[in-house]
Amino acid sequence: MLKMFKSDNTSGIHLKILEAIVNANVEHESAYGSDAITQKAIEKFREILGKDVDVFFVTTGTSANVIALSGALRSYEGVVALDSAHINVDECGALEKFSGNKIIQVHSDDGKIYPDIVKDTLEVLGDEHAVQPRIISISQVTELGTLYEVEEIKELADFAHQNGLYLHLDGARIANAVCALNSSFKEMLTDTGVDLVSFGGTKNGMMIGEAIVVFNDELKGRYHFYRKQAMQLVSKMRFISSQFIAYLDGVWEENAKNANEMGIYFAKELEKFEEIKLRSQVRANMIFAYMPKDLIEVLHDKFGFYITDEKNGLVRLVTSFDTTKEDIDLFIKEIENYYK
Amino acid sequence: MLKMFKSDNTSGIHLKILEAIVNANVEHESAYGSDAITQKAIEKFREILGKDVDVFFVTTGTSANVIALSGALRSYEGVVALDSAHINVDECGALEKFSGNKIIQVHSDDGKIYPDIVKDTLEVLGDEHAVQPRIISISQVTELGTLYEVEEIKELADFAHQNGLYLHLDGARIANAVCALNSSFKEMLTDTGVDLVSFGGTKNGMMIGEAIVVFNDELKGRYHFYRKQAMQLVSKMRFISSQFIAYLDGVWEENAKNANEMGIYFAKELEKFEEIKLRSQVRANMIFAYMPKDLIEVLHDKFGFYITDEKNGLVRLVTSFDTTKEDIDLFIKEIENYYK
Amino acid sequence: MLKMFKSDNTSGIHLKILEAIVNANVEHESAYGSDAITQKAIEKFREILGKDVDVFFVTTGTSANVIALSGALRSYEGVVALDSAHINVDECGALEKFSGNKIIQVHSDDGKIYPDIVKDTLEVLGDEHAVQPRIISISQVTELGTLYEVEEIKELADFAHQNGLYLHLDGARIANAVCALNSSFKEMLTDTGVDLVSFGGTKNGMMIGEAIVVFNDELKGRYHFYRKQAMQLVSKMRFISSQFIAYLDGVWEENAKNANEMGIYFAKELEKFEEIKLRSQVRANMIFAYMPKDLIEVLHDKFGFYITDEKNGLVRLVTSFDTTKEDIDLFIKEIENYYK
Amino acid sequence: MLKMFKSDNTSGIHLKILEAIVNANVEHESAYGSDAITQKAIEKFREILGKDVDVFFVTTGTSANVIALSGALRSYEGVVALDSAHINVDECGALEKFSGNKIIQVHSDDGKIYPDIVKDTLEVLGDEHAVQPRIISISQVTELGTLYEVEEIKELADFAHQNGLYLHLDGARIANAVCALNSSFKEMLTDTGVDLVSFGGTKNGMMIGEAIVVFNDELKGRYHFYRKQAMQLVSKMRFISSQFIAYLDGVWEENAKNANEMGIYFAKELEKFEEIKLRSQVRANMIFAYMPKDLIEVLHDKFGFYITDEKNGLVRLVTSFDTTKEDIDLFIKEIENYYK
Repeated sequence: MLKMFKSDNTSGIHLKILEAIVNANVEHESAYGSDAITQKAIEKFREILGKDVDVFFVTTGTSANVIALSGALRSYEGVVALDSAHINVDECGALEKFSGNKIIQVHSDDGKIYPDIVKDTLEVLGDEHAVQPRIISISQVTELGTLYEVEEIKELADFAHQNGLYLHLDGARIANAVCALNSSFKEMLTDTGVDLVSFGGTKNGMMIGEAIVVFNDELKGRYHFYRKQAMQLVSKMRFISSQFIAYLDGVWEENAKNANEMGIYFAKELEKFEEIKLRSQVRANMIFAYMPKDLIEVLHDKFGFYITDEKNGLVRLVTSFDTTKEDIDLFIKEIENYYK
Repeated sequence: MLKMFKSDNTSGIHLKILEAIVNANVEHESAYGSDAITQKAIEKFREILGKDVDVFFVTTGTSANVIALSGALRSYEGVVALDSAHINVDECGALEKFSGNKIIQVHSDDGKIYPDIVKDTLEVLGDEHAVQPRIISISQVTELGTLYEVEEIKELADFAHQNGLYLHLDGARIANAVCALNSSFKEMLTDTGVDLVSFGGTKNGMMIGEAIVVFNDELKGRYHFYRKQAMQLVSKMRFISSQFIAYLDGVWEENAKNANEMGIYFAKELEKFEEIKLRSQVRANMIFAYMPKDLIEVLHDKFGFYITDEKNGLVRLVTSFDTTKEDIDLFIKEIENYYK
Repeated sequence: MLKMFKSDNTSGIHLKILEAIVNANVEHESAYGSDAITQKAIEKFREILGKDVDVFFVTTGTSANVIALSGALRSYEGVVALDSAHINVDECGALEKFSGNKIIQVHSDDGKIYPDIVKDTLEVLGDEHAVQPRIISISQVTELGTLYEVEEIKELADFAHQNGLYLHLDGARIANAVCALNSSFKEMLTDTGVDLVSFGGTKNGMMIGEAIVVFNDELKGRYHFYRKQAMQLVSKMRFISSQFIAYLDGVWEENAKNANEMGIYFAKELEKFEEIKLRSQVRANMIFAYMPKDLIEVLHDKFGFYITDEKNGLVRLVTSFDTTKEDIDLFIKEIENYYK
Repeated sequence: MLKMFKSDNTSGIHLKILEAIVNANVEHESAYGSDAITQKAIEKFREILGKDVDVFFVTTGTSANVIALSGALRSYEGVVALDSAHINVDECGALEKFSGNKIIQVHSDDGKIYPDIVKDTLEVLGDEHAVQPRIISISQVTELGTLYEVEEIKELADFAHQNGLYLHLDGARIANAVCALNSSFKEMLTDTGVDLVSFGGTKNGMMIGEAIVVFNDELKGRYHFYRKQAMQLVSKMRFISSQFIAYLDGVWEENAKNANEMGIYFAKELEKFEEIKLRSQVRANMIFAYMPKDLIEVLHDKFGFYITDEKNGLVRLVTSFDTTKEDIDLFIKEIENYYK
C-alpha cells in the first residue's frame, strides 16, 4: 500500500518502541506514573537535557500545549502566537475552552516570531481592558516547515525574560529540528533558556506519547495537578514512559534523520519541475510547494496529502520515519507522467 | 513480584490486546480516527449494543466522563452524582474546570442513586439562582463495589427521562458488572435507556482505551468536536481502536470473569476471619473490608492496596484480569500469620 | 403598601445615598474608576479598616464573591464552604463557570465553619487526584442568621494561615454583623486577619454597590484585571463610589442598627406564640422560624417572605434598614388573628 | 470644568433618567427583576421593537456582549468578529474566560464586516480541528465611528441565516446609529433579522444600564440563567429598569441627536485645518482624526481624549449627550492658537 504524505502521524510504531511496550508488560506496577519505568524515563530526560526539569507524559500534542501554556498563566494573561500556530487553528479552541486564555495573534510570512513582532503586543501591559501578553509560543519545526536557528530561540527567550514573559516551544517535531540543525536537545532547549516545551514523540515513531517539559524553576511543582485536571493522567503510564526510554535512547535520531533526508530528497525532486515552486527551503520533513491546480487534482486522487491553500495551489507534503526514496519516486513519477 | 490490589489498573496488557496492537502496526493510515480499523471498532460497538450509537475513543476515564457529561449540558446545568463519585472526588475538579458544570452532590450509603434521592434536587428547576439538574450520573460497578441491578438502571433512566434529565453511566468497570449480573452490554445499557456511557477498557486488560458511547439520538453529532476540544483526539488512533476490537471479541468477558471470581474468592477468604468485616456483599472485583488497624499496617507494608478510611479501618482490595488464587492466598496467609 | 420580609434587598435606597448619587452628577469624569470620587471612596475604606487594602467596586454580591475567590486560586484549588453557602446554592454555579474552581462542601448545623471541620478536607493535600483546599469561605452574618464571634473569625484565619490557606468572608450583611457584635470593621476584618472580603452595600440601603476588599498583601495588584475580565468594570463608576462614601460615613451604622433592632423585635414578638419556634437566637436582621404549615400559608398570602424548608415548616424573615415596628406588628397581628 | 472627549461614558446622568431613579425609590419591591417596574420596562422594549423579544438588564456592555454571545454557542463554536472589535481588544478576554469561546478574527479597513469576509471563515465548517463559526458579531456604531446602512445589516443577517449562523449586534451606541441613519430601533434591529443585541444605555445618558435583547425565538428562555451565572443579576433591579423606561420614552433620541450633531460639528471644525485629516466621514458621535504629533501633545495636555494610534497620529474624539458647541470651540480655539 502507498505511504501517505499527509502528516508524519500516518506512520506506525518504530519496532524498538513497540518492543519497549512489550517488554514493559511483565508485572504489576503502581499506576499514574508512580512506577519505576516512568521514573527512569524522567531521569533520561534530565540526563539528555542536562537540567533537573519537570517532565509530564501525556497522550496528545494538543494537551501538551494547552497544559504547558495554561499552567503558567493567570486567566487574564495571553499567549502571543502566530495566526498560523497549531494552538490557534488546529486545536479546536482547546486553550480558550480549558483555561479561558486568549491567544494574541501576530503574523509573519516565514512562520517565525521575532522580538520586534512581540514588542507591538506589549503596549497594553498594565491596561486592565486588554489581555496581558505573558507567554510567547513558537513551533519548532514551524507550521510552515521552516526552522528557528538556535541563536534565534535564544534571542526570543532573552527578549521574553527581559519583558517578564515566558517562552514556550511547541516541539511536535523537535527531533526533526535538532537533526536538521545538527544541534542537540540540550543546546536547543536548555541552553537557549526556553521555559516550557511540548516535547513530541508520536510524530516521530512512537505509538502515543508527548511530554510536557518544565525548564523554568518558578513553574515547577504544579503541573501534576494541571495534567490530572486536564484529563491526561494515564493510569498504565509505564506503557508511555517505556516508549520514551527507547525513543531517547537513539530512536529519535534515527527516525528524524530519515524523515529529514527524505524531505530534502523530495524537495530536490520536486524542484526539477519548473511548474512547481517550493514555498521555502526544505531542511526538515515538511515541504510546502505551489503546484498547478490540475496537477494537484491528479496527485490527490492517488496520494494522501493536504492542500493547504486551494486558491493558490499550495500543498503540504510530510515525510515520516519510514518514508523511502521509492515512496517518493512513485509520487515524482506521477508528476512526470502528467507532464509527458 | 507480588501482584497489587490497589486497583485493576496496576495490571498490564492482556496478550490478545497486545497482539492486536502489533498487528495494527503494518501500514500508513489516516490519522485521527479516519482509518479502517477505527471504523471497524465502532461497528463492533454498534453490533454488540444493538444500536446505531456514536462512539469516541479516548485515553483516560476522566476524559470519558468529562466529555460525555459536559457535551450534554449547558453551563448552568449540573450533574446529580454521589458525593463519593469518581467525578466528584477523584478527577481533580476536571469537570468544573473544563466546562464549568457543577456537580450536585447527593448521598447514599450503598453507593447507589435512587429516584427518590434525585427528586429532592429537582425542587430548584426553573429557579435562576440555582444550577439546574440535567444529568444523573451513576457508576456501575459503583465506587463502593456494589452493583445496580439491570432493572434499577432502567428505573433511573425512566425517572430521568420523565423529568427531562439524562442518565450517564460511568462504566470504568462495566465489563465486571455485566459479568457479575450475568447480563449483556445490550441488556444493561441499550435496553435500559441509558443516554451516555463512559465505556472502560483499561482497567480490564487494555493498555490505554476508553470509549464515550452516545445512545441518545438527540446528543449525537457533536461529540467529535468536544473530544478534540478536550485534547483527546489521538492521532494514531488505530492503536486504540485495534485494542477495542480484540477486547469486544471476547477478552472483556474472559478478563472480567476472572477478576470477579478472584474478587469473590478473596471476599470468602477474608470472611473467615471474625476480625474482618466486609462492607457489603462482593459480586465483582472490588472488596471493601473493615480490618483492625494493626493488621492493616502489617498488610500494607507488604501488599499494595488503598486504605479508604483510616479512621474506621476500611480498606479497598481490587482484583485484576490476571489475579490468581495464589496471589490472594499470599495475602490471606499473611493475615493467618498475624493471628497465629 | 406592605413592606416585604423576603430579603433586605426588597428595600430601596437610603436618602443620603440617593443624595450622594445626585451630587456626583455634575461634571465629566474619567470612566472606569480613574476619577476623584472613586479614589476618595477607596481612601475611606483604608481609613476605616486601618490598612492599605485594595478595593474594587462591583455591582452584585455574586460577582464580589466569585472575583474575590477565583482571583486567589489556581484552577485545581478549591474553596471550603458550607453546603448552605450562598456561593454553593444561590449563585447558579457562577464560581464553577467563571473560573472552574470547585467548592469543597462541608456541613455544620449552625451555619458556621470551625477549624475541625476544615481539617478533614486537608487530608487530600498533595494528592493530584483531588482538588486542593486553598480558601475557607465563611459568611458573616451566616446564611442561617447566626454570627461568628470576632474571636472565632480570628481562629479560623489563624488556622487557615497555619495550613497555607486563605480566609474569605462573604460580607453581604457585614454591617449587620458589626453592629450586632458591637464591633468595628477594623476589629472584625483587619485585626482578625481575614484575607479577602466581599463587602456588601446593597442590602443595607445602597442602590447598587459591593466592594471586593483585598487585605492580604500577596493577593494585591491583580484584581483590577480579574474585575474587568469578570465583566464588572462599570464605566460611570463614580455613581457607585459616591454611594460608598456616604455609606461609610454613617449610613451603614444607622441602617444596620435599625434592621437588627427590628429583627430582634420581630423575633421577640414571634416567640410569644408557642406554636412558633425560632431556629436559633436572633441577633441581627434574619429570623429563621418554624411555623405550622397552615399558618405559613395564611401569612404567605399576605406578606413577602421565603419558605426555606417546606417539609419542616421553616420560614425566613428579613428586616431592612427601613423596616418599622408597625410593619412587623401587621405581621404579628395576622398571626394573632389566625390563633384567635 | 472642561468636558472630556475620551468617551461618551465620561458624561453623567441625564436629568430625566435621574428623576426616574428617584421616583422608583418609594416602596419595597421583589428583587431580581420580579417587580412591576422591570416588567413595564420589558414591555416598553417589546412595544418599540414590535416583537415579543426577551430582555435582560445588566450593568456593563462587556457583560451584555459576553452573555449574549456565549448563551448562543456551544463551546467549540466561535464568534466571527473584527480584530478591532470591542469584544476582541477591550474586554480583557472576558468571552474566552467566561465561556471558552474563541473569537475568529477577520479584518476590514472601514470597521465593517461584509458577507465575503465571513465566507472565508466558513471553510472549516465540519472540521473537528477547527473552532466552528457560529455567530457574526458587528458593532453599530462601529469601533471606527462608521455606520452599517440598515440594508447592510439585513444582508449580513440573511447571509448568516443562510449559513446556519446568528447575527449579534453590539449596540453600545445603537441610539446614535438609529439617529444618524434616521431609522428606528424596529427598522434597524427587528426588521433586518438581527438575532441578538447588546442594547446600550450608559453611554447615552443613563447611569448604569445595558440590555441583552433576544430576537431569535430559538434562543429564548435560557438567558435568565446565563445572566445569573454571569454574575449580572442585580437585586434592586427596578433602579436599572426605571432608567430604561425614561430612556426609551424619548431620552435616547434627545441625547443621541445632540451627541451626533456635536460630532458632526466637531468634524466640520476640524476639517478647516489642512493639517488635520478625518479617517472617515463623521455621521454620529465618534471622530477619528489624524493630527501632527506635536499638536496632539499640546491638546492632550488640556483635553481628555484617546490617542488611538500613536505612530500614525490618530486620535479619537467622542461627543456626549451634554456636549455643547462651546465645549468644542474651546478645543478648536486651542488648535487655532497652536497654528497662529
